[in-house]
Amino acid sequence: MSKILRINTRTKEFHFEELGKYLGLGGRALTSRIVLDEVPATAHALSAANKLVAAAGVLTGTIVANSGRVSLGAKSPLTGTIKESNSGGQFAQKLAKLGILAIVLEDKPEADAPFTNIIITKDGVKFEAADELIGLGTYASMDKILAKYGPKTGTMLIGPAGETCRMAASVQFSDPEGRPSRAAGRGGLGAVMGSKKVKAIVLDDAGCGMLPAADPEKFKAAAKRWAQILLGHPVTGQGLPAFGTAILVNIINEAGALPTKNFREGRFEHAAAISGEAIAETITKRGGKVKHGCHTGCVIQCSQEYVDKQGKYLTSGFEYETVWAFGADTLIKDLDDIAMLDRTCDDMGMDTIDLGNALAMAMEAGIVPWGDGKAAVKLLQRVGDKNDSLGRIMGNGTGFAAQAFGVDRVPVVKNQALPAYDPRSVKGIGVTYCTTTQGADHTAGYAVCQNILKVGGDVSPTGKEGQIEISKNLQIATAAVDSLGLCLFVAFAVLDNADGVPCIADLVAALTGKPYTVDDVVALGVACLKDEIAFNTAAGFTAKDDQLPDFFRTEKLMPHGTTWDFTAEEMQAAKVS
Amino acid sequence: MSKILRINTRTKEFHFEELGKYLGLGGRALTSRIVLDEVPATAHALSAANKLVAAAGVLTGTIVANSGRVSLGAKSPLTGTIKESNSGGQFAQKLAKLGILAIVLEDKPEADAPFTNIIITKDGVKFEAADELIGLGTYASMDKILAKYGPKTGTMLIGPAGETCRMAASVQFSDPEGRPSRAAGRGGLGAVMGSKKVKAIVLDDAGCGMLPAADPEKFKAAAKRWAQILLGHPVTGQGLPAFGTAILVNIINEAGALPTKNFREGRFEHAAAISGEAIAETITKRGGKVKHGCHTGCVIQCSQEYVDKQGKYLTSGFEYETVWAFGADTLIKDLDDIAMLDRTCDDMGMDTIDLGNALAMAMEAGIVPWGDGKAAVKLLQRVGDKNDSLGRIMGNGTGFAAQAFGVDRVPVVKNQALPAYDPRSVKGIGVTYCTTTQGADHTAGYAVCQNILKVGGDVSPTGKEGQIEISKNLQIATAAVDSLGLCLFVAFAVLDNADGVPCIADLVAALTGKPYTVDDVVALGVACLKDEIAFNTAAGFTAKDDQLPDFFRTEKLMPHGTTWDFTAEEMQAAKVS
Repeated sequence: MSKILRINTRTKEFHFEELGKYLGLGGRALTSRIVLDEVPATAHALSAANKLVAAAGVLTGTIVANSGRVSLGAKSPLTGTIKESNSGGQFAQKLAKLGILAIVLEDKPEADAPFTNIIITKDGVKFEAADELIGLGTYASMDKILAKYGPKTGTMLIGPAGETCRMAASVQFSDPEGRPSRAAGRGGLGAVMGSKKVKAIVLDDAGCGMLPAADPEKFKAAAKRWAQILLGHPVTGQGLPAFGTAILVNIINEAGALPTKNFREGRFEHAAAISGEAIAETITKRGGKVKHGCHTGCVIQCSQEYVDKQGKYLTSGFEYETVWAFGADTLIKDLDDIAMLDRTCDDMGMDTIDLGNALAMAMEAGIVPWGDGKAAVKLLQRVGDKNDSLGRIMGNGTGFAAQAFGVDRVPVVKNQALPAYDPRSVKGIGVTYCTTTQGADHTAGYAVCQNILKVGGDVSPTGKEGQIEISKNLQIATAAVDSLGLCLFVAFAVLDNADGVPCIADLVAALTGKPYTVDDVVALGVACLKDEIAFNTAAGFTAKDDQLPDFFRTEKLMPHGTTWDFTAEEMQAAKVS
Repeated sequence: MSKILRINTRTKEFHFEELGKYLGLGGRALTSRIVLDEVPATAHALSAANKLVAAAGVLTGTIVANSGRVSLGAKSPLTGTIKESNSGGQFAQKLAKLGILAIVLEDKPEADAPFTNIIITKDGVKFEAADELIGLGTYASMDKILAKYGPKTGTMLIGPAGETCRMAASVQFSDPEGRPSRAAGRGGLGAVMGSKKVKAIVLDDAGCGMLPAADPEKFKAAAKRWAQILLGHPVTGQGLPAFGTAILVNIINEAGALPTKNFREGRFEHAAAISGEAIAETITKRGGKVKHGCHTGCVIQCSQEYVDKQGKYLTSGFEYETVWAFGADTLIKDLDDIAMLDRTCDDMGMDTIDLGNALAMAMEAGIVPWGDGKAAVKLLQRVGDKNDSLGRIMGNGTGFAAQAFGVDRVPVVKNQALPAYDPRSVKGIGVTYCTTTQGADHTAGYAVCQNILKVGGDVSPTGKEGQIEISKNLQIATAAVDSLGLCLFVAFAVLDNADGVPCIADLVAALTGKPYTVDDVVALGVACLKDEIAFNTAAGFTAKDDQLPDFFRTEKLMPHGTTWDFTAEEMQAAKVS
């Protein structure tokens, strides 16, 4: 039976704990339950009272395709809400195989204490000085980590942004090649890790095997069914492997919902130049890789290896939202500049969505010219200098940068920057931005499915009808998926396949040897959301916080001429109760 | 009859308006009513939808002693609440004498539009380019304004902090000598003025007389009674004229409530060196002025002219809270350094309380050593360089600086920094910090009276009993005083004199020619608070926001060993309903 590993970051004491009351949970459901139960909702997010939880999902550590997501949870310094941010990479599978369902980082060292690396093997937990990594980007840090601990280790680590507790700091995760290209980007959890003076957690699962299933035959059969469901859907089986998530650039631009120049327009004249098709063409021409899996066991392979003009690796996990944030939203049209901005965020350990929007704030204020990718890269690199005050500002994200620069056009909900879909023209996702427990977040209830992609239903994107229902159902499904340790992209296939959720239930039942039904999957998601809402309520959030900035109401978005017309009260029905 | 002057800052159109539904209001009651009625509660504070209201009080422009306060109101960029911040200086009396009860600055120019000065005389309103003042400190700006518009004008203006929309930017007001030493400091209203691209409003009341009273004889008699009430009380008649408000340094230190080193201790070992007594001695020795009135008609004269070693003027309005913020809270013990920090805030146009606390945040982060006054002055002067990012950070106040520096010990309520009384040892003021509509603010309900000074009652400062009642009653009384245009210090005398409030009622009745009773005074305060609560509720504030940071609960304050032990819910009774 997997255990919870509690680590006191001040005293360097640790112990393994039975799951106890947390039995049956995993991933997001587990991180959120622990945060709700153990972190005072009014605590400062960077104080000793906060905890950073890293959890494997219910299905992680097994042969189940795309089950390698790791959930990070804490009170967010960016939003003040509870936060779960999950990531691919090698960490989750190795964690589960080490017999650890979750690591809980507790307390915090004195302000002048040195940083520590935590090394976990089947033989135990070691603390080592992190001095030689401090101030380094995550790429250089990973080189040293791989050299020291071996190429088969899996690592979560922070960059300079996290070390200095910037509110938009990510936690990065190593991919199968040992590159820190995967991120739990949103909500500043890297700052929480930095406040606890932990630079990296390195997992070495040598000598550990897959988690054993209670019913191996049934489990194997269900896992095979599961892989076929994923491979059989046009999005997960064809679209994502061929073009990655940036396939959405042209689609969302065509839909008139690609936020351009800080959400002023719904179409970007240079969309084609930064599209998934253009990325794939560029990669192919230069000899990079169009397909790449972020973790062992991924059958979707939406990632890639984007290379520069000389064919040298530049970045992976070059997502649609990143391409948008550093492209259309800031009017940058040079793909290499955008790729360099993505790499810079991974290297400094920062969320690309909040940094892209923060860059737009800097452009609004004239700090950097609109569309100037080279200047943008230089600006973001400044976050790496801990004494650079402009770097401090940028590293703290969109809302903070807007305040620093006196900008009043600030696309945030609960201080988290809006992602790549204008809510005036994709209203289902707008409902999610407003009502999710996480601050503006597209992954929390990806209504782009029904609004634009026509996966799992067909709801007109510009009207109000049906949006609350699809957002609510997707929020529940997402919470379940995030708790199981599954990649969210499985949802495309699951929404369109009647056997999707039953197959998931069969997987859990065969793994645990206990009955598990479709209703249990739904209940897992609902319970998770209830926990998160309870925390946020205790922290002081109300319906009034579930709203977009006023300019979405007052400014029409072209080409459709739509405005945001939901009241906060209307949308409350999108939240579980 | 006085009028409201509305100015569109984008189109430069203006018009005078009858009071209409605003008849009977003045000062804070008027600014808050206008903001409630006309500013959307969810608007961005720096957007065109916000309005900046400058209002004279009900009794302003008359012979009534200490009736020269001006109220500024808007939605606060610092707190997100409604905000009223009032100031002495010459502005209010001249405004009233010009027949203007309030100026309402509306809309906002384009981001690249130049700044304007607004000149108001009995003949009308003129807009003039402010180019030659931009980037200048308020002292240098005032020199040019006096040279151009004459020494008898009265001015409200912003410094570089306001021009660049820093969230802790004040609006400064000229005193009888034409120095910009008076401030509406709190809540960042200077940023609102800056967002509207107005550098200064200059009033020339040449040719205008006092406001006529409906019953001149009764008015004159009541005004005489009023002056005698003020002069007859030991605080307003003796203590404040002799030592200014800094007389409190030794008193609050003795009470164990002088927050020291970012609220770690209740006593400062160098309190005597920065006390009102030390200030008076220094001024006397150097040939400055111990007594000084901030506006014509002040009989209390709590201000002073603090001079440097060469006897040259350095600052006025050198208040207890400023001395504390730049003294005990940051461990600076050199009075000249503290005076220079006060002057720097006045010159840059920044709130001393928020900047003092922000300086403590910088010290927590090691940006400046604790106690280093010279380095502190240099740091604050950086706010004057609009491109200096460390200046941007400091100018945005305590909460912002803490986030920029990753500090988790942040003494704010609703993002406004705590003033000079530790709420663990003066619990009545703690109730006010939490429950006032304004964010942490001592003036909104100065329970130090009953807790420490034993004026208007005697309530033990360290217990819970009686605190809610005194805070509530003081909040109502203060709202009335702020609406009448009276200096808050009249409260010392009024609380101890049974004829205090009746005399105020008689003054209003004789001025307006309509019946006005003690109940009407109370009703004025209650209505004002209700308006403010209504705005804040619409903006999304709840009881959860009425609370101190967690460290006040968890850390005992020495020497009394007290913690903050009110729940947010308990304190709701301190709010009018």
